[in-house]
Amino acid sequence: MVELKSGIPLYFKILDILYLTQGQGHFCLNQVARSSSAAVTRLVLERELSQIKDAGTYKSERIITSKQGASIKVKGQTKGILNFCANNYLGLASHPEVIEAGKKALDTHGAGLSSVRFICDAAILYASCFDANAGLFEVLLNEEDAVLSDELNHASIIDGIRLCKAKRYRYKHLDVNDLETQLKDAVSKSCPKKLIATDGVFSMDGNVAKLPEICDLADKYEALVFIDECHATGFFGSTGRGTEEYFGLNGRIDIINSTLGKALGGAAGGYTAGPQELVDLLRQRSRPYLFSNTLPPPVVACASKAIDLIMQNTDLPKKGDKEHPICPVMLGDARLATTFADEMLGKARIRVQISASHSEHDIDRAVDAFVEIGRKLKILFDNH
Amino acid sequence: MVELKSGIPLYFKILDILYLTQGQGHFCLNQVARSSSAAVTRLVLERELSQIKDAGTYKSERIITSKQGASIKVKGQTKGILNFCANNYLGLASHPEVIEAGKKALDTHGAGLSSVRFICDAAILYASCFDANAGLFEVLLNEEDAVLSDELNHASIIDGIRLCKAKRYRYKHLDVNDLETQLKDAVSKSCPKKLIATDGVFSMDGNVAKLPEICDLADKYEALVFIDECHATGFFGSTGRGTEEYFGLNGRIDIINSTLGKALGGAAGGYTAGPQELVDLLRQRSRPYLFSNTLPPPVVACASKAIDLIMQNTDLPKKGDKEHPICPVMLGDARLATTFADEMLGKARIRVQISASHSEHDIDRAVDAFVEIGRKLKILFDNH
Repeated sequence: MVELKSGIPLYFKILDILYLTQGQGHFCLNQVARSSSAAVTRLVLERELSQIKDAGTYKSERIITSKQGASIKVKGQTKGILNFCANNYLGLASHPEVIEAGKKALDTHGAGLSSVRFICDAAILYASCFDANAGLFEVLLNEEDAVLSDELNHASIIDGIRLCKAKRYRYKHLDVNDLETQLKDAVSKSCPKKLIATDGVFSMDGNVAKLPEICDLADKYEALVFIDECHATGFFGSTGRGTEEYFGLNGRIDIINSTLGKALGGAAGGYTAGPQELVDLLRQRSRPYLFSNTLPPPVVACASKAIDLIMQNTDLPKKGDKEHPICPVMLGDARLATTFADEMLGKARIRVQISASHSEHDIDRAVDAFVEIGRKLKILFDNH
Repeated sequence: MVELKSGIPLYFKILDILYLTQGQGHFCLNQVARSSSAAVTRLVLERELSQIKDAGTYKSERIITSKQGASIKVKGQTKGILNFCANNYLGLASHPEVIEAGKKALDTHGAGLSSVRFICDAAILYASCFDANAGLFEVLLNEEDAVLSDELNHASIIDGIRLCKAKRYRYKHLDVNDLETQLKDAVSKSCPKKLIATDGVFSMDGNVAKLPEICDLADKYEALVFIDECHATGFFGSTGRGTEEYFGLNGRIDIINSTLGKALGGAAGGYTAGPQELVDLLRQRSRPYLFSNTLPPPVVACASKAIDLIMQNTDLPKKGDKEHPICPVMLGDARLATTFADEMLGKARIRVQISASHSEHDIDRAVDAFVEIGRKLKILFDNH
């Protein structure tokens, strides 16, 4: 383990913002409320916070003072910490060539564009895949259309659907029979467009959507298929092209949203890839695209370099087998999971994610820690 | 003017993503539709695109091949272009110290965190102010509460409000009498929380919200005040603390959302500053915060350095006077505005924004261009 050095935590600087934008006055709120409405609001919010704490699910945060990697440094911890909770699937977040590309972009293109439009030619880029999901559905679907969504889809898909006016169908997780039932209903209501929306790989447990069956149903009922590939892009499928490639379905998925913020260097950015007409219309109408900043140059450069590395396939492990690197550890109780995570050094989440940058030794140590805490919390016994 | 050099446009690399995630198959959609549903969808989207083009408001995009600044380079243009359409208010997007801070962060913290949580201690950071606005209202307000929104508020405030269940009141732009009428209605319906939501400075025309009157109404009717300070943070008010400082109201605004993506270096990032209880609850509940990536280290470092520069106030102009750098040029016709913008070199938007990095000569040239195109389009005549 590496000892924590006395470096200045980068992120503390950001506190200056509060001073900058609010001066001294604002802090009075925490001592004497400006008005009764502010005081009442504080009480309501305090009560909600107490409820979360009472439920044992309050999430506290730590300050990372090092690069992302298998071992990280965290403020207030004297020892280095093994990290199994990042989406840094290929370990590219601190790859030397990725870093170098970012620096070069800072030199050639500056820190940011201070501007709302970003330029690319055949897909459409957003600040995040959250934004790509938030912007898609409203542009594609109107109130006569139908969207059929897996009940465990990511929060950003759900929010995107909430922002559109289409009829909403929710089918049981991975249940293609239920999906077919809902499709029949949408057909009976003569919805002009029917869009099936699913994560390609579900982030919480690494489950893979049944895309072959879903595509067959889409053909049968004349629906479109949308997948979110955040937990597949760059490393899943024989050459890292994601769930569509994993199933050999190339060309059968209509719309793919994904991220540059996980396997592809892990900085930020998301995108929609799909029919040219859709991409063109998103450029005209998609609200998070039109009304939010472009990606900063170093972020684009780092992601581009990460893609280069994957395309050249240097040293990066092939991930075409059946195993997805997300390994859920199910305790069946949210409070227990929070306690368990608190007990694990460095607040490892219970959703463990293996990265190409982890060694077998790292994994062994994580398993040992699970066993130790499991015994301590009386979940695991020696004779089991 | 600077000649365009033959540099490789950075952003072209991003096209690789499309190949990476979709293989060859996807492009078939543009030739032969996979299914009738895909074909029908293409036709519907094509029709919408045609309508936008027929209306003369289709927005085309250009590839910027240089740093952001008063003069930029654009792909396909042989000459450098004067740029009056960025929010780079203080010219910090390519400031050498800001660039250097970004490089240092790449070395110490890597390209990204590949992970969803970001760490800061007293405000809460998001990937963008769009996300900060999208995440705030749902956490703060429930179905019994009321939100009172200026009709010309930014799209992201509108989307945030659409995602919450509170009763929605929309008051006429800058009209405090209409706001009072709506507040009375919310009081009559016994809404427990009443939140007035307004841009501090409105982005399209540089109008400033009437915050003193709004705060008085908030006190009278026991409402909270939220402002979006994207077009004020860092440069508006005597020390750049924004609209609250501009009016000498420090401490009377309850919640401030703003951006790191305009005056503060222009890369990306947004935040909510407000009562500690609210910030704490946002950390537990705010969806774009919980389910989207943290800001990449170079972005944080660049913004931190920009804030340092503003706090030290080196060379940066004081902006405490009455003028906001947004200068709207109203033509009263969307099609004409698009045509006018197309005629201006480099597709300057009609919303002109003056930055600290513009010289008086730059501004004179822009005015000359407006006059020239105005005459050409028969909007401006010599004897006027």
